Amino acid sequence: MDETIGQVNSPQELKKLNYRKLTEYCEYLRDFIMGSVRNTGGHLASSLGAVELAVALHYVFDCPSDKILWDVGHQAYAHKIITGRADKFSMLRKNGGISGFPRMTESEYDAFSMGHSSTSLSVGLGYARARDLAGESYHVVSVIGDGAFTGGMAFEALNDIGAARAKMIIVLNDNKMSISENVGAMSVYLSRLRLSKRYSRLKHTVKKGVLGIPLFGEHIYKSLDKTKDALKSLLQTDKMFEQMGIKYYGPIDGHDLLNLVSVLRQVKNEKGPVLLHIVTEKGKGDPVAQSDPSKFHGIGPVGASGEKKFSAVVSQFLCEEGKRDEKVVAITAAMADGTGLCAFEKQCPNRCFDVGIAEQHAVTLAAGLAAGGLKPYFAVYSTFLQRGFDQVLHDVCLNKLGVRFLIDRAGAVGDDGVTHQGIYDIAYLSMIPEITVLTPRDGNELRKMLIWSLDFDGPLAIRYPKSYAAEYTCTEIEYGKWETVRKTSSRVYVIAVGGRALQAAEQVENANIIYARFIKPPDTALLDELNADGNLLITVEDGALSGGVGQAVLSYLNTKGLRATVRCIGYPDAFLEDYSIAHSLENAGICKEGIENIIKSSDNFMQ
Amino acid sequence: MDETIGQVNSPQELKKLNYRKLTEYCEYLRDFIMGSVRNTGGHLASSLGAVELAVALHYVFDCPSDKILWDVGHQAYAHKIITGRADKFSMLRKNGGISGFPRMTESEYDAFSMGHSSTSLSVGLGYARARDLAGESYHVVSVIGDGAFTGGMAFEALNDIGAARAKMIIVLNDNKMSISENVGAMSVYLSRLRLSKRYSRLKHTVKKGVLGIPLFGEHIYKSLDKTKDALKSLLQTDKMFEQMGIKYYGPIDGHDLLNLVSVLRQVKNEKGPVLLHIVTEKGKGDPVAQSDPSKFHGIGPVGASGEKKFSAVVSQFLCEEGKRDEKVVAITAAMADGTGLCAFEKQCPNRCFDVGIAEQHAVTLAAGLAAGGLKPYFAVYSTFLQRGFDQVLHDVCLNKLGVRFLIDRAGAVGDDGVTHQGIYDIAYLSMIPEITVLTPRDGNELRKMLIWSLDFDGPLAIRYPKSYAAEYTCTEIEYGKWETVRKTSSRVYVIAVGGRALQAAEQVENANIIYARFIKPPDTALLDELNADGNLLITVEDGALSGGVGQAVLSYLNTKGLRATVRCIGYPDAFLEDYSIAHSLENAGICKEGIENIIKSSDNFMQ
Repeated sequence: MDETIGQVNSPQELKKLNYRKLTEYCEYLRDFIMGSVRNTGGHLASSLGAVELAVALHYVFDCPSDKILWDVGHQAYAHKIITGRADKFSMLRKNGGISGFPRMTESEYDAFSMGHSSTSLSVGLGYARARDLAGESYHVVSVIGDGAFTGGMAFEALNDIGAARAKMIIVLNDNKMSISENVGAMSVYLSRLRLSKRYSRLKHTVKKGVLGIPLFGEHIYKSLDKTKDALKSLLQTDKMFEQMGIKYYGPIDGHDLLNLVSVLRQVKNEKGPVLLHIVTEKGKGDPVAQSDPSKFHGIGPVGASGEKKFSAVVSQFLCEEGKRDEKVVAITAAMADGTGLCAFEKQCPNRCFDVGIAEQHAVTLAAGLAAGGLKPYFAVYSTFLQRGFDQVLHDVCLNKLGVRFLIDRAGAVGDDGVTHQGIYDIAYLSMIPEITVLTPRDGNELRKMLIWSLDFDGPLAIRYPKSYAAEYTCTEIEYGKWETVRKTSSRVYVIAVGGRALQAAEQVENANIIYARFIKPPDTALLDELNADGNLLITVEDGALSGGVGQAVLSYLNTKGLRATVRCIGYPDAFLEDYSIAHSLENAGICKEGIENIIKSSDNFMQ
Repeated sequence: MDETIGQVNSPQELKKLNYRKLTEYCEYLRDFIMGSVRNTGGHLASSLGAVELAVALHYVFDCPSDKILWDVGHQAYAHKIITGRADKFSMLRKNGGISGFPRMTESEYDAFSMGHSSTSLSVGLGYARARDLAGESYHVVSVIGDGAFTGGMAFEALNDIGAARAKMIIVLNDNKMSISENVGAMSVYLSRLRLSKRYSRLKHTVKKGVLGIPLFGEHIYKSLDKTKDALKSLLQTDKMFEQMGIKYYGPIDGHDLLNLVSVLRQVKNEKGPVLLHIVTEKGKGDPVAQSDPSKFHGIGPVGASGEKKFSAVVSQFLCEEGKRDEKVVAITAAMADGTGLCAFEKQCPNRCFDVGIAEQHAVTLAAGLAAGGLKPYFAVYSTFLQRGFDQVLHDVCLNKLGVRFLIDRAGAVGDDGVTHQGIYDIAYLSMIPEITVLTPRDGNELRKMLIWSLDFDGPLAIRYPKSYAAEYTCTEIEYGKWETVRKTSSRVYVIAVGGRALQAAEQVENANIIYARFIKPPDTALLDELNADGNLLITVEDGALSGGVGQAVLSYLNTKGLRATVRCIGYPDAFLEDYSIAHSLENAGICKEGIENIIKSSDNFMQ
């Protein structure tokens, strides 16, 4: 391989490569990503599948004036390298380094900050409309995976795009799976499209003779002029999208760089909305990732130590209790692996529902299952349940239905960064009437809570981070009751919410420690006891202060006449731009020093 | 008309009617609804369009064991009358009466509580799966309008239903408009379906000779046995739904009772999911409502006095400033009329976007428009923006984009009741970093805020109820500054949030009154001044206490060392089951007495 190939550091330099170099560059990118992500961790498989696409897009379009919107964004590593961020890949998803997702603040080439699924079509339409109103002429390309395509807001946007006839390009990057294996009617439909149509390819007219020509794009462009009709007949139209007013091209092989460039050149000139359906392989080029792309969707760095995962407790619970209690059913929104549902899915396939990336439907489906007499468990990441907020309120809680939310990745999440922080769930759940919210300190307690939840008749959420450090012994779950973990003669009471807070509290000598396993309702009887002049209550939670447990404690005591001094530790009112869990906790004061500082600074108040 | 027809008071009695009586009963229902709703107010047009459908469904299915799910639910008045609630219609949407929407707590015939759009398919699939797992055999029918069909969660559910092949019936009630005129590619698609296919009708084999036969259903059933094939060929299949795995029947005339009954009998026996496309007229039978169904979507009782609406101020602002500033664009999610966007839509059709009932897309579209350099205003009801919570956080606020949310129907909403209360927006918005939230006391102040918002560069929300009582003079808007409205020598300071709170405060003699026009950030400089021993600060807000302004004030002062006594007035942590705004306010203490009671009871604390 030409060693200078790694020096390409901008789309402008990329455009100078000839076809042979360009394919070499794809190889280079793939090697670079594999080498780098093996060391740092990251979303390997998706990015490997989108290498040729990223190269072709930057070859055909002129960024940053043209806008490329990478849906979800975890497949955009090649895009990041092309746009001059190769030297920062050793610091991928690390503080001081770069995000694993496109960020507007990181590069002018990142036209929007991505993270949650299915947003790229709405953003793209916004850009397209703004462009047209301003009389500008840049191109807008939304790249969306078949998984993200199952999200309802993508459909809402398609509905608007089709009617508006706005000029924009949708690249449907169909790798035949979202995060776990793809589900749903749309997936069946796409696979039928793939099967029924041969990949379209401009075999005779374009590829022949292109190799070796220095600036092959120029050549392609000329060829295309002559072969437009051929192209059109090759790329058959699809009824479903056409009926929505969106011109369909495809499916084409997303790893065939030359063809990709040719077709992108063609669709660039369309006047209205176009959907280009490309088929790629997740993990392409990496035999390990390719063989099990679900597992390698996101990987930790090689050598990362084994953690005790809360999801393992969920998995065991569902398999065991699911066997005993036929009313137990489980739901996931394309996250069976991450949330611990895989084993139950294998054991009871008819009682485990993977609905795709569709949190809204997942919540209300759970409500329907509960209304029908079952005991649904919806296992979901904290950050993604934000999508189902209205449904939790309006469909589950208003009807007091027995839906159990198992909220994983709660609190600081580390390497996925700001878009995925699970620090808002305490606030957005606690504000909803009728819901009960718990948090376990470890796997033992989660197990107890899960068993307890089997006979709990009402909306229930259990929130926990990915992993826990140590196992404790804990008392039996009693509704609304906290547990005094350490009793001393001190006037300082640390109220710990979650295992991370508890670990911090345990390092503080002398203080009383109370474990607040019920986030909602708080243990008001205990709080009444503690509400005395001279007492210092310090709430510690791995969540946002605004709307958090601390504020709930303060508000409650205030209604009773506040005697004790209340101090709250948690995340301040700012987005948590942090790729390290340890640093997030420390920075927010969810640590020995943070609590001790509060104690010291409160000495004055307590006189 | 047979006078006994009005005595039908249950689906069981309905089933005893012959065809002639059944059509008479439809007329009766229509007259009853028109007469009743004219007096009480309510959703007239939608319910008039669904009379034959409600009758046919209860004739063919056996409720309550069979589950009928009325999406949104405002078209279910006939269903309510059939199921024994005629005598309560004089108390429609009134305390002590019945809801305008299906409520599980109101009747066993209401299989789920409806209110927000596009939930019926998810709930239906939940019931269907629960039924199949329990080995039961009841039928599940989700009735969804073409408007609700544009909501993303309906698509998420279709995607799951198609793949699951669960036995359930989807009745697509296509009245060619959602709340305002229908929009989007789906609507174009449906209208193409309507045009391309004649209404299907079993002319020869069924209708002939049915009139006069006492129990015509029996007869239909027998006829159908013979004519199944004929029916199948008549009701042509549609590609789009079939491709998703859902069998399609239609379109058929939704006011042709006999045909409706016949077809429902047929689809009842299908083994998998079926979509029955019926075409109805919104406002059917009422010449006034039919001529302008958008206006008569929901009506107030005849004689209701004119109100000063905040939406009129929005309307004027957009038309005037929209003319001056070409960057101003507006977005609505099928609520152009209710939110005051109609005039601007007429004036600048290319800068006003009605996206359908699609709040998620609306929010992120706005984010894209802002990223593209425009000044988007998304006018939306408080309760419906709950659907876009994640998008406000993840797409708008995280990127600090200048999207202006105009949040109408904030606070207690009265007659739409518990599902539509706008009392959560303060909490769910304030908890999000980077957002600024304001609330005007009257039209003047809203106008000032809107003008001020033109040059505000960041996420901004302005929340207000439907109407205001009086015009005030108010000082200029200054970021984060509150306004002292009444200065006295008292130690009592009432901090009023919104016009309703201010009106209550004004009735309290002697107290200082501060108008908190910034919900976020609060006026911390002023709060610091007021934070003195012996001062009583009473926050009053037309919103939930949990996560409200009061808690924010208390939390802030607590971090500074709480000296003043803080008392908070707002809605307690329970769903607000109330059809009267006045009663809601009074009951929560957002009134003279409420504030005075706090002052009296705080005398002890203040010593």
